[in-house]
Amino acid sequence: MVRLTIRVDFEPGHALGPGKIHLLEQIDETGSIRGAAAAMKMSYRRAWLLIQATEKTFGTPLVVAAAGGRRGGGASLTDLGKRVVGLYRQIEKQAGKATVRSAKALAHSRHSKLKKPQKSAKNKQS
Amino acid sequence: MVRLTIRVDFEPGHALGPGKIHLLEQIDETGSIRGAAAAMKMSYRRAWLLIQATEKTFGTPLVVAAAGGRRGGGASLTDLGKRVVGLYRQIEKQAGKATVRSAKALAHSRHSKLKKPQKSAKNKQS
Repeated sequence: MVRLTIRVDFEPGHALGPGKIHLLEQIDETGSIRGAAAAMKMSYRRAWLLIQATEKTFGTPLVVAAAGGRRGGGASLTDLGKRVVGLYRQIEKQAGKATVRSAKALAHSRHSKLKKPQKSAKNKQS
Repeated sequence: MVRLTIRVDFEPGHALGPGKIHLLEQIDETGSIRGAAAAMKMSYRRAWLLIQATEKTFGTPLVVAAAGGRRGGGASLTDLGKRVVGLYRQIEKQAGKATVRSAKALAHSRHSKLKKPQKSAKNKQS
């Protein structure tokens, strides 16, 4: 088994990876930040901080309050939020496709899959 | 500015990312684990643990003791070690090339680069 996990790096302190993207997708799916946080087994506060960090990177809201009950209400993705998720998943797909051969070659370099693990070399002091 | 950072995931607990690769490259360049650790501002112990983890993933030595002084000696990459570094850098290059357009589109979605940052939406309770 081999697959890539991709992080898109902008300036230092501004990166977009699978965690933030999955959170946005879960908000889209569950219709609320609380639901998304629960689905990902993270605290509401953690989810909130991740959203804030992502919005800081993009400089504009990715998640908005949706019309809902008096308390709690719901949340949904803005058009930009959807676009960011779509582009990230597209990058992931394109990267995966372009690297199939090399990734397989890397996986095949793993001798542990062919035989029992060998001992690591000793005397590596230096 | 936008660039990808890639982690290659095998089974859970077995992944290969930029840190381990950079360490192997530094060993190749400095000719010793200690030199590589110093160049990366990490402890010898940390470097050693990273090498051990990577060798566990590949089931065979990636770094070997090189002929050197009585104490310390040197270290170099095995053929497989070089191959792993080469394949990872190849994956990185192929992924970067295949995703140029989408990555640029993502970078252009960042309004903060065009104007001053906007305030995050309020009332996202849910």
